[in-house]
Amino acid sequence: MNWVDEGALYSQIAVFLREDLGRGDLTTQSILTRNTRARGRFVAGETMIVAGLEAAEEVFSMLDSQLQLEAFASDGEAVEAGKVIARTSGFADVLLAGERVALNLIERLSAVATLTNKFVRAIEGTTAQISDTRKTTPGLRMLEKYAVMIGGGRNHRFGLDDGIVIKSNHIVVAGGIEPAVVAAKKNLGHLHKICVQVSTDVELRTAVNAGADVLLFDNLLPEEVAKLVTLARELIPGIGTETAGNITLENVRAYAEAGPDLIRVGELTKSGTVVKVYFQIQPF
Amino acid sequence: MNWVDEGALYSQIAVFLREDLGRGDLTTQSILTRNTRARGRFVAGETMIVAGLEAAEEVFSMLDSQLQLEAFASDGEAVEAGKVIARTSGFADVLLAGERVALNLIERLSAVATLTNKFVRAIEGTTAQISDTRKTTPGLRMLEKYAVMIGGGRNHRFGLDDGIVIKSNHIVVAGGIEPAVVAAKKNLGHLHKICVQVSTDVELRTAVNAGADVLLFDNLLPEEVAKLVTLARELIPGIGTETAGNITLENVRAYAEAGPDLIRVGELTKSGTVVKVYFQIQPF
Amino acid sequence: MNWVDEGALYSQIAVFLREDLGRGDLTTQSILTRNTRARGRFVAGETMIVAGLEAAEEVFSMLDSQLQLEAFASDGEAVEAGKVIARTSGFADVLLAGERVALNLIERLSAVATLTNKFVRAIEGTTAQISDTRKTTPGLRMLEKYAVMIGGGRNHRFGLDDGIVIKSNHIVVAGGIEPAVVAAKKNLGHLHKICVQVSTDVELRTAVNAGADVLLFDNLLPEEVAKLVTLARELIPGIGTETAGNITLENVRAYAEAGPDLIRVGELTKSGTVVKVYFQIQPF
Amino acid sequence: MNWVDEGALYSQIAVFLREDLGRGDLTTQSILTRNTRARGRFVAGETMIVAGLEAAEEVFSMLDSQLQLEAFASDGEAVEAGKVIARTSGFADVLLAGERVALNLIERLSAVATLTNKFVRAIEGTTAQISDTRKTTPGLRMLEKYAVMIGGGRNHRFGLDDGIVIKSNHIVVAGGIEPAVVAAKKNLGHLHKICVQVSTDVELRTAVNAGADVLLFDNLLPEEVAKLVTLARELIPGIGTETAGNITLENVRAYAEAGPDLIRVGELTKSGTVVKVYFQIQPF
Amino acid sequence: MNWVDEGALYSQIAVFLREDLGRGDLTTQSILTRNTRARGRFVAGETMIVAGLEAAEEVFSMLDSQLQLEAFASDGEAVEAGKVIARTSGFADVLLAGERVALNLIERLSAVATLTNKFVRAIEGTTAQISDTRKTTPGLRMLEKYAVMIGGGRNHRFGLDDGIVIKSNHIVVAGGIEPAVVAAKKNLGHLHKICVQVSTDVELRTAVNAGADVLLFDNLLPEEVAKLVTLARELIPGIGTETAGNITLENVRAYAEAGPDLIRVGELTKSGTVVKVYFQIQPF
Amino acid sequence: MNWVDEGALYSQIAVFLREDLGRGDLTTQSILTRNTRARGRFVAGETMIVAGLEAAEEVFSMLDSQLQLEAFASDGEAVEAGKVIARTSGFADVLLAGERVALNLIERLSAVATLTNKFVRAIEGTTAQISDTRKTTPGLRMLEKYAVMIGGGRNHRFGLDDGIVIKSNHIVVAGGIEPAVVAAKKNLGHLHKICVQVSTDVELRTAVNAGADVLLFDNLLPEEVAKLVTLARELIPGIGTETAGNITLENVRAYAEAGPDLIRVGELTKSGTVVKVYFQIQPF
Repeated sequence: MNWVDEGALYSQIAVFLREDLGRGDLTTQSILTRNTRARGRFVAGETMIVAGLEAAEEVFSMLDSQLQLEAFASDGEAVEAGKVIARTSGFADVLLAGERVALNLIERLSAVATLTNKFVRAIEGTTAQISDTRKTTPGLRMLEKYAVMIGGGRNHRFGLDDGIVIKSNHIVVAGGIEPAVVAAKKNLGHLHKICVQVSTDVELRTAVNAGADVLLFDNLLPEEVAKLVTLARELIPGIGTETAGNITLENVRAYAEAGPDLIRVGELTKSGTVVKVYFQIQPF
Repeated sequence: MNWVDEGALYSQIAVFLREDLGRGDLTTQSILTRNTRARGRFVAGETMIVAGLEAAEEVFSMLDSQLQLEAFASDGEAVEAGKVIARTSGFADVLLAGERVALNLIERLSAVATLTNKFVRAIEGTTAQISDTRKTTPGLRMLEKYAVMIGGGRNHRFGLDDGIVIKSNHIVVAGGIEPAVVAAKKNLGHLHKICVQVSTDVELRTAVNAGADVLLFDNLLPEEVAKLVTLARELIPGIGTETAGNITLENVRAYAEAGPDLIRVGELTKSGTVVKVYFQIQPF
Repeated sequence: MNWVDEGALYSQIAVFLREDLGRGDLTTQSILTRNTRARGRFVAGETMIVAGLEAAEEVFSMLDSQLQLEAFASDGEAVEAGKVIARTSGFADVLLAGERVALNLIERLSAVATLTNKFVRAIEGTTAQISDTRKTTPGLRMLEKYAVMIGGGRNHRFGLDDGIVIKSNHIVVAGGIEPAVVAAKKNLGHLHKICVQVSTDVELRTAVNAGADVLLFDNLLPEEVAKLVTLARELIPGIGTETAGNITLENVRAYAEAGPDLIRVGELTKSGTVVKVYFQIQPF
Repeated sequence: MNWVDEGALYSQIAVFLREDLGRGDLTTQSILTRNTRARGRFVAGETMIVAGLEAAEEVFSMLDSQLQLEAFASDGEAVEAGKVIARTSGFADVLLAGERVALNLIERLSAVATLTNKFVRAIEGTTAQISDTRKTTPGLRMLEKYAVMIGGGRNHRFGLDDGIVIKSNHIVVAGGIEPAVVAAKKNLGHLHKICVQVSTDVELRTAVNAGADVLLFDNLLPEEVAKLVTLARELIPGIGTETAGNITLENVRAYAEAGPDLIRVGELTKSGTVVKVYFQIQPF
Repeated sequence: MNWVDEGALYSQIAVFLREDLGRGDLTTQSILTRNTRARGRFVAGETMIVAGLEAAEEVFSMLDSQLQLEAFASDGEAVEAGKVIARTSGFADVLLAGERVALNLIERLSAVATLTNKFVRAIEGTTAQISDTRKTTPGLRMLEKYAVMIGGGRNHRFGLDDGIVIKSNHIVVAGGIEPAVVAAKKNLGHLHKICVQVSTDVELRTAVNAGADVLLFDNLLPEEVAKLVTLARELIPGIGTETAGNITLENVRAYAEAGPDLIRVGELTKSGTVVKVYFQIQPF
Repeated sequence: MNWVDEGALYSQIAVFLREDLGRGDLTTQSILTRNTRARGRFVAGETMIVAGLEAAEEVFSMLDSQLQLEAFASDGEAVEAGKVIARTSGFADVLLAGERVALNLIERLSAVATLTNKFVRAIEGTTAQISDTRKTTPGLRMLEKYAVMIGGGRNHRFGLDDGIVIKSNHIVVAGGIEPAVVAAKKNLGHLHKICVQVSTDVELRTAVNAGADVLLFDNLLPEEVAKLVTLARELIPGIGTETAGNITLENVRAYAEAGPDLIRVGELTKSGTVVKVYFQIQPF
């Protein structure tokens, strides 16, 4: 993560901690004295690609700037069930107060990285790349996109201000592919490429003639994608191509073999299944 | 939602919109003029319990205070695939700018409500109630707990400051069940009940003798839960009982029939599976 | 104070300093050069229980992170007039800029601690405890409740989300004690005890039968409180009991001898009388 | 209040409400349905000058923008015990949620206004005016100074950036009255008057010669003040004069008759005694 | 402006007003009663393109939501000295409090629009377009870029996250044009075009071969730009071309006639010369 | 700068960086690895008074707390073209990310200091002083006034709450000079001097009789100013005098020789001309 992300991460962790701690951890405050010390460790509950350790460390160090995490696996590493991912030692009340937020982050981000990695491995040997979408959990886009990257995927737009993608809903209100592409090219085409959704030969030719730089094939069959990819490259060698829509671990290879540059998989961040991680605490 | 939640919701939606919009929607700005008008409608993609319509409406009205959602289903209502849940009409750029955030919210919250409702229906006829946990998506706890309630579930603690629950990690560092319960009772037992995790007869008796008000049975088999529930009520009629740990749609009824008051299901908010909702736009 | 309080304290001190300093200290800026150094010391102007030294230190260290307070008394300690409570040395403009805010905090918090301690000593030997109320200075609740604790008192609810207390105003709109208690118990009774205000034998029996966990006797005479406490314990041994309403240093012992667990004294934080503390500055 | 104060008031009330409500009013939420309506009224518990009604109204309207207060007394008006100051009607949960914050504000601000008014009346017929100091409750300066004004007093500096007052602590580190006044005059004397604390004839002459515009007599006897006031006006007709230090309702008239323009009374906002106001709720 | 800009504008105006008003307008508060009404009008002091009226209206309506501006010229319109641009009527204290901030905005933004327009007119008839740079006043980028657009110019990047421009400083640290372009294309070339600074034929060919989409000619003579533009289009018809560096009203036409698509003029926002606008107030 | 300014500066720099960086520096992220190191240096492009180095250092250290600037000139120092003002070394991506914001600040602030210094030198030998006005860039007042001071000028009011200046617009709505001055003196004259705009002998006498402490001569000829200054001092020796309105480098000496204490020059911060500074980066 670069410094911009670090600053944003810091703010987010603060929000997450406030959400869970409110006025403070009643249980720990009522049963422990401040200076009880303990050790804690994160243990993988299943096979997974680790992601979110940096975020978890931030959780604890925000509660106690002295406390740090010793990691035994780095973000992006594959680990088996039972693996001790990281350990820490410090005041017991700090470990107990940060436990839930840290686990919620590691479990979700590791799940995104793990799933992404399955998609990436499913298309190994093809020329396509797996990318995410904007179907992320509200408020967690940056972290989830980080996990996608850690899992070997590529990040698509971070927001509506991060590139031009003209989809069917835009085309409908703009009055067709041609006027939409022409307008986008005229107004913003200087540094931005124009990506347009097309479903047929005719639409593809219209888009290319109007100046489209990238073509998006959404909700088509792999064989339809293959035909359109071939046509597109005949018209403009090196033109960008993307496919999307109901991509699953089962069908992703068929889509990859259809030849597009990028396969956008909403499932990476939408499915949200978490992987299991345990946090075990022991007194000194 | 009460006014506190409303204020918090407003702030969150603003964060979600900023996350997706950044400096603005490049695509829409480059292809549409500001005063193009259109109609949009949300359509259920599968059978689901609707949740999050109020949040989706807030998304659009934050972008344009004039624009409102006309709902055809209310939060908590069961709908079939193809049902038009809500429709709206207004400036096309506003509909397109808010679409993704609104969908991300409706899909996730409806998924939580739908899953909760499956658990609730799975134990119909028993005396137990389904509740959520703190295993929520960081930043979305309030909204996810709202969806649990909408789905027929009950909300457990909103944060560490919202009740005392002494779990195994606390017991380990506090030096045992007895000192933990006694300390909690002495320091905070005036308005708060003391909930303690116990796994055996001996632990249960220790907890009750020390003054526990509620007992939590975590990661036990249904028959173990049944025995402990019976013992607890023999010792203190009316004492609170909860069970938790690896509860699934398959085994939840067995746990419910073991007799506890509450069944805490982390899966409600952890699984995160979204349901499918479409947003269709048409020009006037 | 735990880390949650520390973060909140930091934010508050920043607000207090901005309130007093605005664009800066005109007087000091116009008469001193930045690098003039001086010593300052806080001297007790009367007999008092010290509270707020940590807050005062925060004031100065926020103005100059190098500057620290050397304390000669700790929060909670009783000191006589003339006692040097703390001293500090550093840039004169920092001492002069922070002086008023630091004094305003120490004087008020020490006053709360001192008054609380008088109430605590007035009931020594009884089984009752002194607690505060929510009648705190808007914006200073956390600090004032800290001072109450430092003075030997116990903290009651930190806010309306920190426990259920059904008072006469609630009973009136809920249509009686019974429906109010039953509803509270059903909706939130799992981890929260239900505290109810009762004034007569009949009300007390109604509350207990409906499931009340704690009884509040407000604005009654000591002898009435004594009778109700006795009745309550006959019905439910160990039930919680509180009294409140026009408690003064004169009558508090009579109320304590009536036997309740807790005596809520609004006066602790409402009276607001400050104690006198001096800040003396000397150049090197 | 002008618009700057209104904006600041709004922000403060939000802070006060968050302090008291946290995640919401547990009691009301658990016993009432959202649409129960009720009437509430504020009743004076003793003779007082009313202050803070506008703030109280803001409390309720922030909870429910529809709800308004109907005032039967205006800020600054003297009322007797039993007088209904204001009434309101609306949702019962809103009245109950706002009650404590509204009362805490009205009681404290009315107490400041009432006490100020006693001081003002105590010196009626003299040429002096009563003013406040910076010895205000941290975070409440604006509101408390408003109450002083409402009670007939005059506001002194709102902060260290709101005028130059050279006190003994400044003189000590600046190396004397002369260098302090000369520096202040040179650096900031263009639009700001220079106020200096003096205790003797010699100091007064030094200050005047150095260019002081206003003289402050702190911790002197009334007869000493009278002598210095006379001397000051002999030297510079129309020069400003202030007195301060241990001013009480008993001795304030003696100080006023000594002839200063302004009497600074820390007690106005330091004493903090609240007056009693009741909030009575009735269902429809 | 779209809604994102509107929200941002609102926040900025609030900052600007706080900067100028602090605790309030001493002069107006001390000489006027709140309900004095007056009329105000903005009058052009010289020939100019008007910009910032919407911002000025926001200034006043933030001080008094009732008060509105009646505009007699719209943003982008050319007016002569003496022209009444807008008028307003309302409380005199509001007009006086907002005057300076409103004028500071109108004067600066109109100056940017006016200067931009001079550049635009200077190249009329050529195929080039005038664009701004990131050399904007810190904190005013959005407003200044709005003024550039109003003056007929085109907006270049809004920030470092809004497009890829590889300049000499980047090339130096990346180890040459080729590795820089190749890396950028591989990592972010999917939706973003790659713009590279080149100064010679060799650099241009290297950049084009590496995959550059847009070429930037910085600090070259018009004849050098002409040669490179020609070469670029021979290699890739339709490739983007930009020129920048010391562009003045005197030399801009020579650069435009050299044929680039875009001429980046730092001067538009850097020079900052304001145009003169008067605000005249009259009582009713 | 004192600590108040430092805190404010820190917040502002954060805003400026967010404005330029948004989600991050696309160019640098795509072409550099995080650990590439480089050296950078600021070089004066023309003769100038340096200002803003502290702000520039803050820019870089906010991006990387390890990175610091080594200055070879201090704020206020005159340097020639070619002079290396400062150098720094660190991660290349940090230098490239902060470059533009740092340059924008140094160039503008140095321009203000340089221009101020020209005015100051133009009146050397007279008794007048050059001061700024409130005609500053919205959002940059503090920094621009700092640059004025660095250039040898004097700061006038920081905001409308920082002194009383009654101008023609105020006089018009207040109904004349006399009522305006009398009201200001009565309400706020205790610590604040009253400054009033007058244009004629009659107005001057009216103002002085009403109690004005400072006189402002706006938009008059030098000879008119000279006459009024003389008259004012005849009436009240030592009375404050200011002149303002269309002051240029050409006419400022004539105004200074007319004898006023202060000459307010809006041009100092209004003209906004930046001076040229280069930032050169080299890899290690």
